[in-house]
Amino acid sequence: MIDAALTTSVSAEDFKFAFRHHPAGVAVVTADAGNGPVAMTVSSLSSVGIAPPTLVFSASPRSSATPVIREAGTLVVHMLTADQVELAKLASTSGVDRFGEDVNWDRLPTGEPYYPEASEWLRGRIIGRLDINGSTLVVVEALQAKPREDVEHDDRLPLVYHNRTWHALGEHSRLG
Amino acid sequence: MIDAALTTSVSAEDFKFAFRHHPAGVAVVTADAGNGPVAMTVSSLSSVGIAPPTLVFSASPRSSATPVIREAGTLVVHMLTADQVELAKLASTSGVDRFGEDVNWDRLPTGEPYYPEASEWLRGRIIGRLDINGSTLVVVEALQAKPREDVEHDDRLPLVYHNRTWHALGEHSRLG
Repeated sequence: MIDAALTTSVSAEDFKFAFRHHPAGVAVVTADAGNGPVAMTVSSLSSVGIAPPTLVFSASPRSSATPVIREAGTLVVHMLTADQVELAKLASTSGVDRFGEDVNWDRLPTGEPYYPEASEWLRGRIIGRLDINGSTLVVVEALQAKPREDVEHDDRLPLVYHNRTWHALGEHSRLG
Repeated sequence: MIDAALTTSVSAEDFKFAFRHHPAGVAVVTADAGNGPVAMTVSSLSSVGIAPPTLVFSASPRSSATPVIREAGTLVVHMLTADQVELAKLASTSGVDRFGEDVNWDRLPTGEPYYPEASEWLRGRIIGRLDINGSTLVVVEALQAKPREDVEHDDRLPLVYHNRTWHALGEHSRLG
């Protein structure tokens, strides 16, 4: 005999409660499928392979950028540091112009919009899309990285999102 | 004319360099497909939907637990805090007994092995597997959460993995 409680689904509230306590690195994804640039902040970026170099992130149906990112063949994924928290906020706030005149953005020679100030970026092509309960998992093969000579890491602290707050990692947060 | 550099793939070294600077929350996944419990530390956990509550993580081909997790019907995903860093190390170190007599583990009434000390856990069933260049994306629908009365958050700092170091989030790391 199976206890009914064991087969019950988790409530949305309990699920969100659990994930509110799971921190994440912060990335901004940009793309242009032919009708202008879009940008979206994601906290779901991870690496899934290195031969070839492959990454994945999930695109929420609540983001206005998702339809364009689904349609685009290529995109740029930016890894952000704490000094770029304004960029993370820009790409996660509704109703603001993410490519306005006061925003530092440009296009790569291949045409994709991108934010040059990001500590790291990878340009890639979408090799898979998996629809899961409304969200889209986007699988990307990396084609190009920000040139190493443009990467300045030593004085930049990685950005983390956690329970609706932003954090900076560094010696101050290190364990042991 | 297309510059050859624009179509070249990213080297594994450059790709890993980029991701070494992308921090992540830490989770431990446990399962038993009938031949004993396995555990694996993952830094790729994210939520992909709430109706029904759905999560995803990637299982590396380098982990000895991956074949079992691929085969299991259900599993437990534990979200870790800084005081549980030893558990994260236990489940990511080769050749140690992750369910030895000195380890605090148990089984849920439904049979899955789990670590009761984890700040949060979700039990779920695997609803999809996507093979990507050697890794497996595992899609899980959450069925059960750690009972709220057992969850103590206020004094626990979330654990973050970054560039081969462990970090704790808290007021000390908060921006703004």
